[in-house]
Amino acid sequence: MNEIYDLIILGGGPAGLTASIYASRAGLSFLLIERAYPGGQAVYSSEIDNYPGLPGISGTDLADRFRKHAELMGMQQITDEVTYLDLGEDIKTVHTMTGEYRTRNLLICTGASPRRLGIPGEEEFRDKGVSYCAACDGAFFKGRDAAVVGGGDTALTDAIYLAGICRTVTVIHRRGSFRGSMSLQNKLKEFTNVRYLMYSQPLAISGRKQAEFLQVQTPDGIITIPVDGVFIAVGILPDSALVRGKLDTAPGGWILTDRHMRTSIAGVYAAGDVRETPLRQVLTAAADAAVAVEAIIST
Amino acid sequence: MNEIYDLIILGGGPAGLTASIYASRAGLSFLLIERAYPGGQAVYSSEIDNYPGLPGISGTDLADRFRKHAELMGMQQITDEVTYLDLGEDIKTVHTMTGEYRTRNLLICTGASPRRLGIPGEEEFRDKGVSYCAACDGAFFKGRDAAVVGGGDTALTDAIYLAGICRTVTVIHRRGSFRGSMSLQNKLKEFTNVRYLMYSQPLAISGRKQAEFLQVQTPDGIITIPVDGVFIAVGILPDSALVRGKLDTAPGGWILTDRHMRTSIAGVYAAGDVRETPLRQVLTAAADAAVAVEAIIST
Repeated sequence: MNEIYDLIILGGGPAGLTASIYASRAGLSFLLIERAYPGGQAVYSSEIDNYPGLPGISGTDLADRFRKHAELMGMQQITDEVTYLDLGEDIKTVHTMTGEYRTRNLLICTGASPRRLGIPGEEEFRDKGVSYCAACDGAFFKGRDAAVVGGGDTALTDAIYLAGICRTVTVIHRRGSFRGSMSLQNKLKEFTNVRYLMYSQPLAISGRKQAEFLQVQTPDGIITIPVDGVFIAVGILPDSALVRGKLDTAPGGWILTDRHMRTSIAGVYAAGDVRETPLRQVLTAAADAAVAVEAIIST
Repeated sequence: MNEIYDLIILGGGPAGLTASIYASRAGLSFLLIERAYPGGQAVYSSEIDNYPGLPGISGTDLADRFRKHAELMGMQQITDEVTYLDLGEDIKTVHTMTGEYRTRNLLICTGASPRRLGIPGEEEFRDKGVSYCAACDGAFFKGRDAAVVGGGDTALTDAIYLAGICRTVTVIHRRGSFRGSMSLQNKLKEFTNVRYLMYSQPLAISGRKQAEFLQVQTPDGIITIPVDGVFIAVGILPDSALVRGKLDTAPGGWILTDRHMRTSIAGVYAAGDVRETPLRQVLTAAADAAVAVEAIIST
């Protein structure tokens, strides 16, 4: 029989690596399970300018720093894919492709991924004008022309953020009205540099080294608009399939937690992008994890 | 008449400086007011080992990095002391020693300070064996002997944390029973390396370069115990006098916020140690500030 860990951490992004740092320092016996190389979504950013203390760092460098910090403190990590979770009352069992591991506490840091449009140029220009996070990348487009694709709260929040710093913002939405809240719609209407393309869908992104043009199907035909940044906000998907039906989640599958990061099952915690939270950043994911480990220690 | 800012930030610790980074990037017009040199409580730590990505950094270096990052993004800061806050419905006015400033949003990042015991050696050995934060500094005392002074939830949480990593923990409390929760008391009782000195009070800390001895008045007389670390947890005081009676606070004066860091008055936000929060660290304070600025932008 395996040993029983104090803590198993699922996922090796900023939240999981921070949990590892805190768990090591607290002397917990723990294991971090990540299916690929630790780092998380952040590694896709060529430049991250809002992690305090490390301005202008690349996503891979920041992820490397987190990983090295965790290793320095004594991270115990395996590369494996989790297949099933048995969330028993006292002991939780994590089944993976190659084995099973038992633990008193489980911290889910599996993250989330933006939904893609699936149009030509989207992958090619990712991080070269195409972004899925205005709060992360918007500042790189100050005084320039941006487009936002989507009609929910995230798209409206992104458009408001960008309207405050970009020369123009074009909001592209496939329906005739927004799904996002009326207060956000009203806030966005205060800006005079925003135009709307309703009943419209992006067809392709093109350019030389960077995104330069966005082709859009509008009710009046296909138009091509010059853009510097295309912000795609058509949904973000939590990587929470393993706990669906087991833990309380918000619509969309986001894991619900209290302010100590406790989920609806005792001994199971969630941190970072996978949980229902107002902001998804490296910084906030890391802070979540610190709070979770602190709660685990004193429970 | 002064201009009306989008945001005024009170306090230049990790929360205030992070708010400045996020506000600059979002193109907000803002002002940070700090009465001393930016940095906050963190500057008192000779080593901070749990800010992810920067292991083993000194408190002053970390504070410097935050300040430089904020300046690089375009921080607008004045050194001044706030004397009075007028929290009007639309416009809030910040009165200082030398002027007054108007803003649509106010973010309070004024922090907190640990209550001192006021005994000989406490200041001399601060950060040389004397600490006010087990989650911050406990790991530096792995396998060694620690004492915890206090009887509330924080003292018990600190004792639990330290019991997991130190050789022995001596809990010193001036009363005969703990004020802290029964669940924390029970959790602490699981450890066999913890001893209790009840009805006892520390008299002095002594040593050569580091704290080595703690003199304690016990019911049986004065004893001297050898210690490597003395963790003082006799209370922490929020710097919230400016808003007392104006904002909803928890017992002790901690500012109550929702998960967007909104206080009980629209347009007034709080972030970092000054708010009612489960963990007070550089990392969590910074994350609070990011969430607050994001909420300010989309409100």
